[in-house]
Formats: sequence, structure tokens, C-alpha cells
Amino acid sequence: MKTIPDTIAVILKRKSVRNFSGAPISKDDLETILHAAMAAPSAVNRQPWNFIAITERKTLDQLAEGLPYAKMLDKAGAAVVVCALPEKAHDHSLDYAIVDATLASQNILLAVEALGLGALWTAAYPTVERMAHVSKVLHIPAHVIPLNVIPIGVPTGEDQPKDKWNAANIHWEKW
Amino acid sequence: MKTIPDTIAVILKRKSVRNFSGAPISKDDLETILHAAMAAPSAVNRQPWNFIAITERKTLDQLAEGLPYAKMLDKAGAAVVVCALPEKAHDHSLDYAIVDATLASQNILLAVEALGLGALWTAAYPTVERMAHVSKVLHIPAHVIPLNVIPIGVPTGEDQPKDKWNAANIHWEKW
Repeated sequence: MKTIPDTIAVILKRKSVRNFSGAPISKDDLETILHAAMAAPSAVNRQPWNFIAITERKTLDQLAEGLPYAKMLDKAGAAVVVCALPEKAHDHSLDYAIVDATLASQNILLAVEALGLGALWTAAYPTVERMAHVSKVLHIPAHVIPLNVIPIGVPTGEDQPKDKWNAANIHWEKW
Repeated sequence: MKTIPDTIAVILKRKSVRNFSGAPISKDDLETILHAAMAAPSAVNRQPWNFIAITERKTLDQLAEGLPYAKMLDKAGAAVVVCALPEKAHDHSLDYAIVDATLASQNILLAVEALGLGALWTAAYPTVERMAHVSKVLHIPAHVIPLNVIPIGVPTGEDQPKDKWNAANIHWEKW
């Protein structure tokens, strides 16, 4: 039986966690998670991203008020909002900024799993009203795009990974 | 000193590898990599992605001909093209399809690193001519978007990770 490297095991068992215990998340863990985020690749290494790390209960609640799919913030210990900065991106391109900030976001989700914590992507982009809500609560400047709100917490264990392997998604050599 | 989980070490040491030995990549490794890709999250779990795995020298060379930043395909053992499928995405949205296929792509880059191999994202999207070239070589249908070409190979060791940590990218509690 072939041994799977730990990282691949973490990638396969990462799941969207919606059930949190309510315990806090340490600043240390948040810094580790953000370190992982910034290790993502970006077009021409422009790193067109910024991160807002939130631990204050009041702000987490304010975010939840305008985000129908982020109600689990009520038991999250923290949240990270990944912001895309088109003005910093290659060719000042919105498309590259979104892609690069998305790559950083996946590193966040995996780092959370590796730390034994739980998280999920709740979308701000591309819904105009949700982006406006997040920007208003967090005082994000007009030229910056809040891509998502990633609640982070201690998982209760209720959420389990899905097996999404589907050989029909693969084409060998050509479509 | 705090112990860093293996996965976070892999996230931090992942780099864009442009120098390959020319050695082949096994189908087993490609399947592991694609397994990791499909473990990514997607909006409303729509999984709006497909993957083309290429090992034939002729096809790798044909791809390189129309991609100015993918010349390292000449020594790659394989490549994966991640395709975004707006028709399968939440709300049939191009934006969600691109984001979800990007999340899968980051899993590919990390799985490659975890296996001791090397890779990098060379962009097809959003450049119309590059997408058209990749679609033509691989017979990709018109409604499908080739997001990138990810050459995969055995690294020579010349490429090293960058430390991209920048505390100025982080806002605590609010922007």
C-alpha cells in the first residue's frame, strides 16, 4: 500500500466546517494561517492581496448580519477576509487579482485544516450587495474587492469531508 | 520553538519550478495530483472543473508553441490543464467557475510539491489568444475555459521558495 504524504492527506480531508465550538482562535494561529496565505503564487509575483483578520465578536456579528450564508460566524473564533487589489495585480487586471487572491484563500483553508481548526469560504464576490456590506463593516476602500469571509473556529466534529473524486472529470492527452 | 505541521511547511516551501530534469511523471502521481485537485471546495459544491492530463511529448511541444511563458514544457514530464465550466457553476456564473477552478489548481500545485515534484501556473485565462491556442491543441469545446497550463516535472533544484511574508498586508479587526 502506497504511503500518501501528509499534505495530500490534509488536502483530501479538508472540508467546509460550519459547526464551531465557540472557542477563540489565537493570534499565533492566525499569523501562521496568514503566513500560509502569502506563500501562494501570483501572476508576475505581484501579490495583489490584503487580509483582514477579525476576532472581535461585535464585528463578526455585524458581518453575519448582511451575509445569508455566514451565520456560522456566531460560533467562530475569528474570520479572515481576503481582499483582491486590482491596482497591484499584473496588468492592473481584475481577473488576475481575483485568481491570485483565490490561490491565497485556498492556502488559508488548508492551513486551518492542518492546524486542526475548521473554516469555509463564504462568498462576498461576485455578489455586489455582499461585497458592499463587507466593505462597509470593515471600512474597506472602494478600489479593493472583498473576495470572501472565511470564518475560522474549533470544529465540533460534525462536518466531514466529501469524496469528490470523479474519473469523468479527467481527460487524458486531449479533451 | 513551535512545531509547524508538515502541510504548512509544504505550503511555505512550494515554489514555481521552471527547471525540470526531463524525467517522466507517472500516471500514479498524476492521479494523486488530480485527486487532490477535486478535493477543493466549490460554490454550492458544483465542482465546475475538468482536467486534461498530458504526457505526450508532441502535445506538450504544441502547447509551448503558443504560450510565451510556458517554454519550460520542453523538459516537463507532464502538464495539467485546469478547465473552468461556467455551465456547471453555481448560477452558471463565469466568476464562480474561475474561482472554483483556481482553488482546484492550488491543490494541484501543493500536491506536486508534497510529492517532491515541481510545477508552476502558466496562465491561459484571461488572455484570449492563449486560451484559443490551448483550446485548439487540446480540442476543448467552446463553452469550456482553459484556465492555465501547469507543467509538472522533476525539479533540478535550481528553483527556491521566496519568503513573501509582509505584515503590511494584514489589517487587524478593520482595514
